[in-house]
Amino acid sequence: MERSRIERALRGEEIDRPPIWFMRQAGRYLPEYRAVREKTTFLGLCRDPELAVEVTLQPVRRFGLDAAIIFSDILLPLDAMGRELRFLAGEGPSFPDPVRTAADVRSLKGLDPHRDLKEPLEAIRLAAARSPVPVLGFAGAPFTLACYLVEGGGSQDWIATKRFMTTEPAAFRDLLDRLADAVGAYLQAQIEAGAVAVQLFDTWAGTLSFDDYRSFALPAARRALSHVRGAPRIYFTKDASPFLHVLRETGADVIGLDWRTDMAHARTVLGDVPVQGNLDPIALFAPPDEIRRRVHAIIRAAGPRGHVMNLGHGIVPETPIEGVVAMVDAVKSWGV
Amino acid sequence: MERSRIERALRGEEIDRPPIWFMRQAGRYLPEYRAVREKTTFLGLCRDPELAVEVTLQPVRRFGLDAAIIFSDILLPLDAMGRELRFLAGEGPSFPDPVRTAADVRSLKGLDPHRDLKEPLEAIRLAAARSPVPVLGFAGAPFTLACYLVEGGGSQDWIATKRFMTTEPAAFRDLLDRLADAVGAYLQAQIEAGAVAVQLFDTWAGTLSFDDYRSFALPAARRALSHVRGAPRIYFTKDASPFLHVLRETGADVIGLDWRTDMAHARTVLGDVPVQGNLDPIALFAPPDEIRRRVHAIIRAAGPRGHVMNLGHGIVPETPIEGVVAMVDAVKSWGV
Repeated sequence: MERSRIERALRGEEIDRPPIWFMRQAGRYLPEYRAVREKTTFLGLCRDPELAVEVTLQPVRRFGLDAAIIFSDILLPLDAMGRELRFLAGEGPSFPDPVRTAADVRSLKGLDPHRDLKEPLEAIRLAAARSPVPVLGFAGAPFTLACYLVEGGGSQDWIATKRFMTTEPAAFRDLLDRLADAVGAYLQAQIEAGAVAVQLFDTWAGTLSFDDYRSFALPAARRALSHVRGAPRIYFTKDASPFLHVLRETGADVIGLDWRTDMAHARTVLGDVPVQGNLDPIALFAPPDEIRRRVHAIIRAAGPRGHVMNLGHGIVPETPIEGVVAMVDAVKSWGV
Repeated sequence: MERSRIERALRGEEIDRPPIWFMRQAGRYLPEYRAVREKTTFLGLCRDPELAVEVTLQPVRRFGLDAAIIFSDILLPLDAMGRELRFLAGEGPSFPDPVRTAADVRSLKGLDPHRDLKEPLEAIRLAAARSPVPVLGFAGAPFTLACYLVEGGGSQDWIATKRFMTTEPAAFRDLLDRLADAVGAYLQAQIEAGAVAVQLFDTWAGTLSFDDYRSFALPAARRALSHVRGAPRIYFTKDASPFLHVLRETGADVIGLDWRTDMAHARTVLGDVPVQGNLDPIALFAPPDEIRRRVHAIIRAAGPRGHVMNLGHGIVPETPIEGVVAMVDAVKSWGV
């Protein structure tokens, strides 16, 4: 059986045009997603395999994308590890019982994804059976998960996280190790459930200084990815540039690039590792011709080998659907 | 007369230890600042030269810093250019009448700093006369000011700004040019009032893709700085790394580095241009010994020539004063 376009690109093969998918491609910018979301809560949607598959496939059908990424949330494993996760309407995630001490870290339960994350794994199995294109899995990277767990939710400055990290580095490393092992097992289970590739999201690693990134977030991401076999592993951080020259140390097969990073420069620094990205998500608000010009500039800079087209971060809820259509059209008409 | 420590560092001279000042060193983390702020509004404080000088000198006296940066706000020139600026309690800045069209851009008034910004210039004159250390001036960079003006206030994604930029690039460039000329004249007036150096804050340039940075924000910053003579000009952006290899094109005499950027790597890429920075502002929540270790690592990586110690962004309001003391002590005890 011939490999799909996305699998070939993730493995660094030369192809006529890059495959395309979008981070957060199933989401609030789609009216059909909002219609499903009206029936349930955000967590309810994540934990209902049938509904999760439905929203997973919505953008694939509407835009003819080259991959489906399973609809889920990076924080689900933390709830399974013993810290209750809540989503309050309009407020984002919160953990009422944050992790702030070495004893808190030791109190975390180990994760058995087959026991603790049955619903998202079932959703991947269903999606793999029903999707016209390959299905991708994902998880949050250890440092990014630690941020939410220590802070007790989102934050601008991550003060509690960094205070814990610099005050009790051994306990913080213990936390990262536990999260890395949990996330690694979860990604492996996703591949066994049918994901053809997995992405590790290290969204908040870019709040760290270079030294802290290399000392904490990077080894934890490497440890998580080291548990994963049998499918390409993509590593994404929202701020790749400060760390570009060390990102291969994560051991990832593919490096996701944020939109600030210059694609041509990244190719020079990274060498021949496949890359993913990296249009500015807000460029989708531009006129179609301008979107086309920008997409083609990225394809040209990335070259014909080992490039998966994507945004440099997730689609924002206000995004006009015409912008998404224009980007997909620009990719599909490349070289035609 | 011998030049001060900060003037020597800004000019690239070798010195026994770097000078130190902090972005946002006069601010809410200081009880003496909060006491003054209780007497007036934020804008009232910016527009009262006596009070502005008082808060400007507070951190200099308390910590024995090597420079005073005038207390002011980057948005004052925009109010003078005809767009009313409001600060609502707890909500940050807003412009009720944002700039969204080419006609809006053309309606902006030109800035005469001597007529329109009398109070901040008077504050610099007073501070220069009263301060035990040199006084620094500053302004917002054209792109960063355009963000607030188009958006009508702060934003996470700057959708209106980027939509205007990509939909009407000529009008957006016209806006940047007008802002560059205004800001350049204002910085020059600050030097004439007694500032020994000026810093251009391009806080939000790091929301741009590399191509957009190079096409819009960078030439506008260069244009602003090209109007300024007679004192070193520092250029700071909160995300230097994606643009590091082109930052010298701003024409700045000194490059301010954010805390993510690796100092040693930055020195390699930037060559012999003096640099400023770059401790993580949240590292001030660490124990004193850990702060000392981190500060000394930065001094070591920067080398003895052309380095001004600072944070990699502004002090946050929650910052413990002991952390600031520890950082100043670490710098002053370098090599002793």
